[in-house]
Amino acid sequence: MEKEENMDRRKFLKDGLKIGIGIAAGISMGNGIALAKKNVEELPYPYVKLDPKKVADKAYEGYYKGECAYGVFSSIIDELKVKVGAPYTGIPSEIFHYGGGGVAGWGTVCGALNAAAAIFNLTCKDFKKMIDTLYQWYQTAELPDYVPSQGPFCKQPYPKSVSQSPLCHVSVQRWCKVATIYYKEDVPYKSKRRSERCARLSASVARKVVEMLNEYHFGKLSFTKVKESEKTKMDCKICHEITMKGKV
Amino acid sequence: MEKEENMDRRKFLKDGLKIGIGIAAGISMGNGIALAKKNVEELPYPYVKLDPKKVADKAYEGYYKGECAYGVFSSIIDELKVKVGAPYTGIPSEIFHYGGGGVAGWGTVCGALNAAAAIFNLTCKDFKKMIDTLYQWYQTAELPDYVPSQGPFCKQPYPKSVSQSPLCHVSVQRWCKVATIYYKEDVPYKSKRRSERCARLSASVARKVVEMLNEYHFGKLSFTKVKESEKTKMDCKICHEITMKGKV
Repeated sequence: MEKEENMDRRKFLKDGLKIGIGIAAGISMGNGIALAKKNVEELPYPYVKLDPKKVADKAYEGYYKGECAYGVFSSIIDELKVKVGAPYTGIPSEIFHYGGGGVAGWGTVCGALNAAAAIFNLTCKDFKKMIDTLYQWYQTAELPDYVPSQGPFCKQPYPKSVSQSPLCHVSVQRWCKVATIYYKEDVPYKSKRRSERCARLSASVARKVVEMLNEYHFGKLSFTKVKESEKTKMDCKICHEITMKGKV
Repeated sequence: MEKEENMDRRKFLKDGLKIGIGIAAGISMGNGIALAKKNVEELPYPYVKLDPKKVADKAYEGYYKGECAYGVFSSIIDELKVKVGAPYTGIPSEIFHYGGGGVAGWGTVCGALNAAAAIFNLTCKDFKKMIDTLYQWYQTAELPDYVPSQGPFCKQPYPKSVSQSPLCHVSVQRWCKVATIYYKEDVPYKSKRRSERCARLSASVARKVVEMLNEYHFGKLSFTKVKESEKTKMDCKICHEITMKGKV
């Protein structure tokens, strides 16, 4: 079964490359738009094994160029552009620049998680299960667990926290509280320490995404089953008190 | 000034089309990866005036194929693929399928808003101001304000609500409460009425995005300035009580 899937995947990879060339030829002959439109919609795209460490390093650097969502998306998509080529080459690496700070500072979904979800959407049939597994890991793991090999903070031990939520403002606030105790002085949202935390977090998430993709496509990944209320997969109790009637 | 910008835009449009052909030719000559990678990163892409009503109708239909984020993203990107062509043709219209239900049912950022933010990122230098303006409109307007011209619900008046938040689960829950009073019976999250609400909402958002883009590129758009706490642009009081010490 596993083998068959890999065989199919390889066939798809070859076909994908043919499609890539088809699109190119189509456009240069002047009738490419309909052709390209049809072909680029055939998700998921082929995936090849990537190096989690290399991607993490790029995501860390990417954070300082365009924040969290850009860091995660560009670090993975750029590797796929080099290793697979088309159809990834048609996707602008900066498309997730907007995701920083939970979408342009709105504090909604963590930008690293938003970009990661898009990567799964591009590369996996089971993207919803991949998202559940990643988000559950994110809200229960002590993060950031990535240590940069260079930069001003590389030799320093760094405080970690458990976010309990995929939301940016919740995740950041919990870390700031832990960091304030750790450093014995206020660590506000607008500080170099908090930026460095989000740079490392972007690297942690990008590495986890690649590890998961490698296992999903070339090994055996176990999905995490997430509890779901009627309206959300987030844990209501993190933000809401339960009333006596048992309703949120 | 306005005229100059339009001139520049037209020049960029022409150059963009040249780049599109360049990418195509590059790939067919076998050295397209580096070329494509470089060129597709030059955001924003050229924008041409779109028809808000046409896009809204497509977003409404799109919702029933792939939920809110897919509905909004594909309705706009597909029009740009037809009217501009490259470099939009390289972007898979299904890339935001994952955004449904606030990212795969997690209830975080409304998928229509997530996709809309990506569209601004692709087409506007001022994408953060565009996002602020749209999100502020979304959380204060009575929505959905789109009425479909066909389908089982087209002739029915439909309840509207004010979300007060860009978060999916908050937005949905507020509408369900209003709808429950309106219909004099429970309207749960998992109901056809709620799905129809989100289909209409996707159309409302897609239409607003195109109206904003048309004004931004070919008229005069006034941005909305949003109040910002340290960690988020959302209104803290919507979810959190303020303690006696004035902290959230």
